Amino acid sequence: MKNNILNIWLITLILLIAGCNAGNKTNEPTETTQKSESVFPKGEKIDSENFTGTVWLQMMGARDTTLHASFGNVTFAPKAFTNWHSHPGGQLLFITSGKGYYQAKGEPARPLSTGDVVEIPRNVIHWHGAAPDSEFAHIAISLNQDEGGAVWTGPVTNEEYNSIKE
Amino acid sequence: MKNNILNIWLITLILLIAGCNAGNKTNEPTETTQKSESVFPKGEKIDSENFTGTVWLQMMGARDTTLHASFGNVTFAPKAFTNWHSHPGGQLLFITSGKGYYQAKGEPARPLSTGDVVEIPRNVIHWHGAAPDSEFAHIAISLNQDEGGAVWTGPVTNEEYNSIKE
Repeated sequence: MKNNILNIWLITLILLIAGCNAGNKTNEPTETTQKSESVFPKGEKIDSENFTGTVWLQMMGARDTTLHASFGNVTFAPKAFTNWHSHPGGQLLFITSGKGYYQAKGEPARPLSTGDVVEIPRNVIHWHGAAPDSEFAHIAISLNQDEGGAVWTGPVTNEEYNSIKE
Repeated sequence: MKNNILNIWLITLILLIAGCNAGNKTNEPTETTQKSESVFPKGEKIDSENFTGTVWLQMMGARDTTLHASFGNVTFAPKAFTNWHSHPGGQLLFITSGKGYYQAKGEPARPLSTGDVVEIPRNVIHWHGAAPDSEFAHIAISLNQDEGGAVWTGPVTNEEYNSIKE
């Protein structure tokens, strides 16, 4: 009788532990980590000396040249960035995913993340690109293009990029 | 002796069930349903006769008037839309969330969703707004503003809105 009760106790214990574990498995939380992805198309890799690292570009319009605007979605891999450059007619950046920087010559780099907007004045020499540990995507709208396209003025050095303090 | 074993069995059973339930609770999946929300700030409700329904606006810049651009994030509640209007310098729309329409006068309405871009030519009379069952948000960039601001030409009627065929 004593052995029977012990056996029932052991079988109950094993079944309960098994049932409990099975229950936990079906209730495991699903993957919650999400990639940082822009809502706009990534486009094709840029093959240009005006960029460091891997950068994708999807041009979006400028079919109507009378608007004097060219615009597209730019996506930077981590540690990728533009050369120093300026725009005679100015430019707007709308950050749609990830983390990165905008730096005007002679000023500290400005950290950027999703939802930020940058209004780049005419002829201000600057660069923009991704943080070391994050992709970075923005819409870029170059304005007043009838007054000229981007003027490129040389690479951002590793020293310049690595000296950014947040 | 028999009673002692039964008591131990009952206590074990109660503790195991309690532990099992506590374990299940901590492993419950978190809420996975996500609202369709723009990455840019929603801003304040517009109080204007140039819109039908509830519309929010967050202006974003135009500090540098020499860029000749004004820009902001516009969010429409379901069934909310602009009046008919045109822009002397043209306008760009970048759809960041939800579903809606763009319609140029005399043309069929164009359905829009996240990731779409609309290049609105100079002086084309048009409206934009949300679908009946969805919020709708876009960045709007009015270009060449030195040539004048929006020209409003009257409301989109319920007949016009309800006659959209997708």
